[in-house]
Amino acid sequence: MDSDYGVPRELSDLQKKRAEYHPEIPPCLQGTTVRVEFGDRTTTSDPSSDHVIRRLFPHTYGQPLAHFLRATAKVADAQIITEHPIVRVGVVFCGRQSPGGHNVVWGLYNAIKIHNTNSTLLGFVGGTEGLFAQKTLEITEDVVSTYKNQGGYDLLGRTKDQIRTSEQVNATLIACRSLRLDGLVIIGGVTSNTDAAHLAEIFAVAKSPTKVVGVPVTLNGDLKNQFVETSVGFDTISKVNSQLISNVCTDALSAEKYYYFIRLMGRKASHVALECTLQSHPNLVILGEEVAAYKLTIFDITKQICDAVQARAEQDKYHGVVLIPEGLVESIPELYALLQEINVLYKQGVSVDNISTQLSPWASALFEFLPPFIRRQLLLIPESDDSAQLSQIEMEKLLAQLVETEINKRMKEGTYKGKKFNAICHFFGYQARGSLPSKFDCDYGYVLGYICYHILAAGLNGYMATITNLKNPSNKWRCGAAPLTAMMTIKRWARGPGASSIGKPAIHPVTVDLKGKAYELWRQNAAKFLMDDIYRNPGPLQFDGAGCDAKTITLCVEDQDYMGRIKKLQEYLDKVKSFVKPGCSQDVLKAALSSMASVTDVLSVMTSPSFTGHTPM
Amino acid sequence: MDSDYGVPRELSDLQKKRAEYHPEIPPCLQGTTVRVEFGDRTTTSDPSSDHVIRRLFPHTYGQPLAHFLRATAKVADAQIITEHPIVRVGVVFCGRQSPGGHNVVWGLYNAIKIHNTNSTLLGFVGGTEGLFAQKTLEITEDVVSTYKNQGGYDLLGRTKDQIRTSEQVNATLIACRSLRLDGLVIIGGVTSNTDAAHLAEIFAVAKSPTKVVGVPVTLNGDLKNQFVETSVGFDTISKVNSQLISNVCTDALSAEKYYYFIRLMGRKASHVALECTLQSHPNLVILGEEVAAYKLTIFDITKQICDAVQARAEQDKYHGVVLIPEGLVESIPELYALLQEINVLYKQGVSVDNISTQLSPWASALFEFLPPFIRRQLLLIPESDDSAQLSQIEMEKLLAQLVETEINKRMKEGTYKGKKFNAICHFFGYQARGSLPSKFDCDYGYVLGYICYHILAAGLNGYMATITNLKNPSNKWRCGAAPLTAMMTIKRWARGPGASSIGKPAIHPVTVDLKGKAYELWRQNAAKFLMDDIYRNPGPLQFDGAGCDAKTITLCVEDQDYMGRIKKLQEYLDKVKSFVKPGCSQDVLKAALSSMASVTDVLSVMTSPSFTGHTPM
Repeated sequence: MDSDYGVPRELSDLQKKRAEYHPEIPPCLQGTTVRVEFGDRTTTSDPSSDHVIRRLFPHTYGQPLAHFLRATAKVADAQIITEHPIVRVGVVFCGRQSPGGHNVVWGLYNAIKIHNTNSTLLGFVGGTEGLFAQKTLEITEDVVSTYKNQGGYDLLGRTKDQIRTSEQVNATLIACRSLRLDGLVIIGGVTSNTDAAHLAEIFAVAKSPTKVVGVPVTLNGDLKNQFVETSVGFDTISKVNSQLISNVCTDALSAEKYYYFIRLMGRKASHVALECTLQSHPNLVILGEEVAAYKLTIFDITKQICDAVQARAEQDKYHGVVLIPEGLVESIPELYALLQEINVLYKQGVSVDNISTQLSPWASALFEFLPPFIRRQLLLIPESDDSAQLSQIEMEKLLAQLVETEINKRMKEGTYKGKKFNAICHFFGYQARGSLPSKFDCDYGYVLGYICYHILAAGLNGYMATITNLKNPSNKWRCGAAPLTAMMTIKRWARGPGASSIGKPAIHPVTVDLKGKAYELWRQNAAKFLMDDIYRNPGPLQFDGAGCDAKTITLCVEDQDYMGRIKKLQEYLDKVKSFVKPGCSQDVLKAALSSMASVTDVLSVMTSPSFTGHTPM
Repeated sequence: MDSDYGVPRELSDLQKKRAEYHPEIPPCLQGTTVRVEFGDRTTTSDPSSDHVIRRLFPHTYGQPLAHFLRATAKVADAQIITEHPIVRVGVVFCGRQSPGGHNVVWGLYNAIKIHNTNSTLLGFVGGTEGLFAQKTLEITEDVVSTYKNQGGYDLLGRTKDQIRTSEQVNATLIACRSLRLDGLVIIGGVTSNTDAAHLAEIFAVAKSPTKVVGVPVTLNGDLKNQFVETSVGFDTISKVNSQLISNVCTDALSAEKYYYFIRLMGRKASHVALECTLQSHPNLVILGEEVAAYKLTIFDITKQICDAVQARAEQDKYHGVVLIPEGLVESIPELYALLQEINVLYKQGVSVDNISTQLSPWASALFEFLPPFIRRQLLLIPESDDSAQLSQIEMEKLLAQLVETEINKRMKEGTYKGKKFNAICHFFGYQARGSLPSKFDCDYGYVLGYICYHILAAGLNGYMATITNLKNPSNKWRCGAAPLTAMMTIKRWARGPGASSIGKPAIHPVTVDLKGKAYELWRQNAAKFLMDDIYRNPGPLQFDGAGCDAKTITLCVEDQDYMGRIKKLQEYLDKVKSFVKPGCSQDVLKAALSSMASVTDVLSVMTSPSFTGHTPM
């Protein structure tokens, strides 16, 4: 029903109130004169990928970072933009719906109109399919008014998250040309922004006047790197899920007779599960990244949970809450291998009914061991990126069942002496995605949309809109843009799916960093969480009063501000130059040389491709 | 871990803020002088049950309604209570946890202490088991402080929702005697309050000085009658679930490719499903009451959904949201009969593995037709009240599967010409129960707790604390107490479970009234909801600003105020008496006689046991 998109609709009281909220623009974007400061040419975070990316992206590799500064900022070599000719911009929802996505459109619309009322913003109706088919809806104040600060993507809709095949790319090129677009803004996650990077290069080759800009909007939190501290939607998703998990914890503690197994969305990475753990303090979380790092089998995980149940039973506790990320199934080595075999058989055209008979002996043995419901779910047709249909595989039920069997066994053997183990399973999936966005996501999405205009006004192509220093209030946010190529890496091997992208430059989903501060914070508290039931209930998402300005713990504990540090380094380098001007003393010069030699030695080792301590973020 | 109960705990920012909120006491309860006005002796709503209940409850049947009035109220025959001797009161969580339950304890505690600081409130630790074992925790300001306005029952915990066997009743009698309790307050739903009614009678027979008081706290909303407009917890549960359903609606509309089948808690009645429908406007809801009333089979329901899917496909719509109450399985005639057979076999001691072989031929045929996952779930051990384990039976999956099969069949036959049907299933169960209570439930629970003290101070036994006129602000609430026996009826037949209670007086769960205003409101809009996607998103539960004072639509559209009308009737009767005093004219007396004769004639017909138009609420 394309004709329904963008239609004003009836809002509830709370929605109306939210539609009245107006995010603030950071000082650097206020007014119509903007200064753009360009940094040094960028590289990629993985030196070994550098030459391949450079070769494949001759037009868009190595572009400098851009920082948007206050009109009054005194920066010698900043580009000052005061003229704002009429522009025509297209915007498309390209990833899965994420709270805050509507605000990107709204922020972009406002920025465009504030700088020239004759400019036009066209929304592609029905996602990428609308882009290919040139179905557009002109964004106006009327159109956007009932979607301000609202969840979902129903302003424009979305379809397939892909602009990749030459057919799709050509259709995009033709659409941008015939609609005479100066810019195309792509709203999405890792896949969509990888597509945006390729598109930008192809557009540059084709000398298309349309500049391509990406916006990091994905609730999984897996689009994250030096330039992107978090993505739009993660804050809301974490809060809605934490609310529900906390409610279940409270429930568990009240009746003291159930173990709740809860599966959370988040695809390949466990960011949502980790953030919810830090918010709600459930007894246990099984992070996919830990399972993968320590190569834990399904039996190891079952044993780990059983040991926890047993330890708690010894303290007369028969309740608990266990979180599981939906990507877990692909992190478990033997299940992953089984899925890969199934996937290969699918590609060979083997029908569902025959797959189980054609598995290798060991995979067949594992398959037969699994309960029927999981077997059926593992056999579901893989998704477009070759990963399994994670949302459909009920790992929480499999684990609950295996734990129950093992506890019953221990009971018979006399090693477990407690009461009967009772599990209840929940899947917290689609009920969070369409939520009203949190204040943070409203602000973040709106300002990113606003930045997109400035990227286009500065004539940049192949950039992503970025904001750093996000953990501080929005008037301290640093606005900028980073080349999409600087976020790309090449995987030569892969644990987990996405094998099709091996060897090709891509913006890869970032998994939970087991050396990171968020993970460390959990580890420090894991034993207490497990045994002491220090459940915490952040409550429902608030828009007024206590809790409305809370940000994710993941964002707050990680001291990211990469863009700020890049600028700080430039200041140090400038200072050295100002101390060591020709005419300075021989001693000062010697000291500088010696110190700088040491710095460059260390850095040269650290940035060599063979440096094993290197962990790309 | 009993020792953890009542322990002060760390609260999140929002929880802390909530703990600071103090519900207001309606004017009638302010101060320490309270007037109690007694109405006429009560009867039961079903005249045919009357004589049985009267016989079984000789001490507690027919007690008058009590209204608590302002100290300044001018009511001639009101009992005025100014003395407040020391009392010792026990309180026990007896039903399933429900948001707002903690506030009953807090309100009761405050009322007790305000009237005499030397009085004591003892909480039974671990629910009814704590009651039988006399495990208590003295409620103090310290103990209650971190549980004010908080969800769950973890202040005291709960166990089995039953005080029924003579062993349990005796243990309760002994506990109350040895703890020298003046009152026992039982917090729970229909089952717990039925138990409270029996307990009150038994205590009276035993000349126990302990008075028994019940409080209507159950999230299902099925404890509802002339005196009880809604129960504590229903407001919160409806709001949390509506939030999630609305998010799923937004999601469905954004991607336009899935049908979401959502199962909601609510046990035998569909109040939660109906309220959430009125809040969120999903496309379809299958109410158990409709299914039972029209004797719809599983195939009828499947056809109804398929027809909806087909009609929407003809408008190029391939998404939708379908709500299902968890009690649906017991409303479908053939499934209910199958469950009954299974139940009987269980009672005969047949083992799970053999049950399927001993079913009657037709039940066996139905059983074999069902997918394996449902078969397993139907075979789960029934609950203590003989009903199936509703939370464990995934009716949403069964329906989604049957609909898919039927749509595929129609596709082959060429009657359905749309795209493939895709369903995603969700169970919204335990994630709402532990929620922070809404402002309404905070207020309602607190004031009910407060009223309990006044019931005890007035020396009443076998009463439930009641508040009417709830849809108005709390300063307009009417506080009172109604005898538990006046809420009892006797079922002579039963559709649905609870067959064990047939023939015995009980406070029965009230199902959705298909002649009621809430249902009518849905029916009026059902066609629009089905086809036009006028989804509405009330958003997350708010404690400040827009939406924080919203009440359930069910409460607001139903014009209940029974207690107000009872008082109004008294006023009319008094007025007649004042007009027709001895000495009035013959004409006036004649007119009065004639009018009153007509009134009494009509009422005598309406209240006769054989009156078929009679529908107990």
